[in-house]
Amino acid sequence: MGMAELLQYENVAWYETGTVRILDRRVYPYRKEYVICKTYEQVAQAIRDMVTQSGGPYTAAAMGMVLAAWQCRDDTVERQWETLQKAAEVLSQARPTTTAKMKMVTDACLAHARRALDAGDNVTDAIFDYAFDALQIRYAVYREIAEHLVAHFPKDGVVMTQCFAETIVGTMLLACQSQGKTPRFICPETRPFLQGARLTASVIADMGFSVHVITDNMPGYILERERVNVFTSAADIITMDGHIVNKVGTFQIALAARHFGIPYYVTGCPNKDHPTADSVRIEERDAAQVLSHMGTRVAKARVKAYYPAFDIVPPELCNGVVTRKGTFSPHDLSSFLYEEEFTP
Amino acid sequence: MGMAELLQYENVAWYETGTVRILDRRVYPYRKEYVICKTYEQVAQAIRDMVTQSGGPYTAAAMGMVLAAWQCRDDTVERQWETLQKAAEVLSQARPTTTAKMKMVTDACLAHARRALDAGDNVTDAIFDYAFDALQIRYAVYREIAEHLVAHFPKDGVVMTQCFAETIVGTMLLACQSQGKTPRFICPETRPFLQGARLTASVIADMGFSVHVITDNMPGYILERERVNVFTSAADIITMDGHIVNKVGTFQIALAARHFGIPYYVTGCPNKDHPTADSVRIEERDAAQVLSHMGTRVAKARVKAYYPAFDIVPPELCNGVVTRKGTFSPHDLSSFLYEEEFTP
Repeated sequence: MGMAELLQYENVAWYETGTVRILDRRVYPYRKEYVICKTYEQVAQAIRDMVTQSGGPYTAAAMGMVLAAWQCRDDTVERQWETLQKAAEVLSQARPTTTAKMKMVTDACLAHARRALDAGDNVTDAIFDYAFDALQIRYAVYREIAEHLVAHFPKDGVVMTQCFAETIVGTMLLACQSQGKTPRFICPETRPFLQGARLTASVIADMGFSVHVITDNMPGYILERERVNVFTSAADIITMDGHIVNKVGTFQIALAARHFGIPYYVTGCPNKDHPTADSVRIEERDAAQVLSHMGTRVAKARVKAYYPAFDIVPPELCNGVVTRKGTFSPHDLSSFLYEEEFTP
Repeated sequence: MGMAELLQYENVAWYETGTVRILDRRVYPYRKEYVICKTYEQVAQAIRDMVTQSGGPYTAAAMGMVLAAWQCRDDTVERQWETLQKAAEVLSQARPTTTAKMKMVTDACLAHARRALDAGDNVTDAIFDYAFDALQIRYAVYREIAEHLVAHFPKDGVVMTQCFAETIVGTMLLACQSQGKTPRFICPETRPFLQGARLTASVIADMGFSVHVITDNMPGYILERERVNVFTSAADIITMDGHIVNKVGTFQIALAARHFGIPYYVTGCPNKDHPTADSVRIEERDAAQVLSHMGTRVAKARVKAYYPAFDIVPPELCNGVVTRKGTFSPHDLSSFLYEEEFTP
């Protein structure tokens, strides 16, 4: 699989003449369906509804900004600017845990819009060009990160993942190929949305690597039994003091990995907006998702549920933060000079 | 709920005139269906097929022995004895992890059968009477264990369970009532069979206690966030050197509980047949269960899966083994003089 196919995987949200089309990952890969948005508010709602996941919301937010520009294209410059600022606010706040990163995207869109408005250029085109470039840049950054990550993999051996998005897992496998490594993979299924089984494992199998899915109660046992060499995950937030906010379950796998002396490497970029984990708000999602499987309720009526979407791994359980500049100690992230990835 | 209702919960396998009827827990509580067995071989097959779980197989095995006696009732004494010995072998081996405990049940059935054969009594009645008495004795033992367990609970507060069977959870709640304690409960759902959501949580809600279900990737985070006071589980095997073999996932919860200083108490009885964990064979079940949800396959065709049904908690992660004689250190089980529960 090359960059073209990766783009296809990632092309979960795409703008075309007054419409944003988003691949519905809630049903993929059982069905390939799209949510069609005619307004930026609909795009924000789709992001809130988990139509797209992992890197998808960033692309969706940028494409939502393109759509906002299209919606207000016949207004005065002043009114256009108002609409775009409102759209940036609504879109960046669609996913509580990643608001800061989402805001980087929408802020960059605003900057390009402002320039186009001042120059009398087509604002829709200006934001779209930025969104497309940003996507390309993001892929390039992913490729760099993946090369650094795979340097920690054995030539053969076993790698456990946790809820890895398609793009990062795709670039990771390309890096395995370029470095001549053929690890096999073990993916916890990641209830309740099953991203690990549906997305991560499916991409790995598609790219010709060996992959086993396990349920989320098995990592602790399987890490030892299958002699896993490396545990790795991406992160929704990496705080400047080395706390890793990622899909719920990451903490207990990292803890078990440490118990067995298996290194845990996280990929991503430290986030200056979060000096510590104190500013992190863990998103609580609809508990009904936990109580149902494939649409069927599994517990009796009076049974309740919790659904925290993320948890936090403390820095002492992480062996290294793999960035595009190489691997850093989680206790040494201040030496990583943070540059925004989403501004051109 | 009193003992009569508990018996109903437990009465998952019952013999009546040439038939053993087993409640099908694979579909309970969505549907209340029974598997009807006309031969002991069918009973063994039902046990293998996971029609009944936790304490159910022991009752089913005893009722299977009653059925075997019925099947051969018109044969010579010699042939009857042969059939019963064969039935004991087949039934005790239906579940690899608990063969030793199953054999205790079938051996006791054989002892009663031998006595009846020698005395010219009705063998079917003799085994049935034993099976019913053993069930009553088991409930009484459960009640004693539950009283000792609940002594470790706070008056209010939070208790996390793992895949607790109905009988032990029922007796635990009765003990809470008798000791005037009203903890609330958090139950991991226990994929892929969802015993935690379907059975444990449903019984707790039915008995009027507050209960939340979580997915199996959440215990590590929820233990801290919800300030859990105690983690508890039953065990399929407790080795004499304090290793706990229980539903997969128990290990990683126990590890996280220890990380946060939350005590883990296991209920059960040390097993002399397992001096150490070396003799424990972890049952590997059909991987297709992991790759499907409610009958729908969730990953692409080339994706494989593992399904170890149990894992092993080392003694240093367990705060106490709660037996009918009180709570013992997992490092001090030799001081617990083991008496077979299943012999009269």
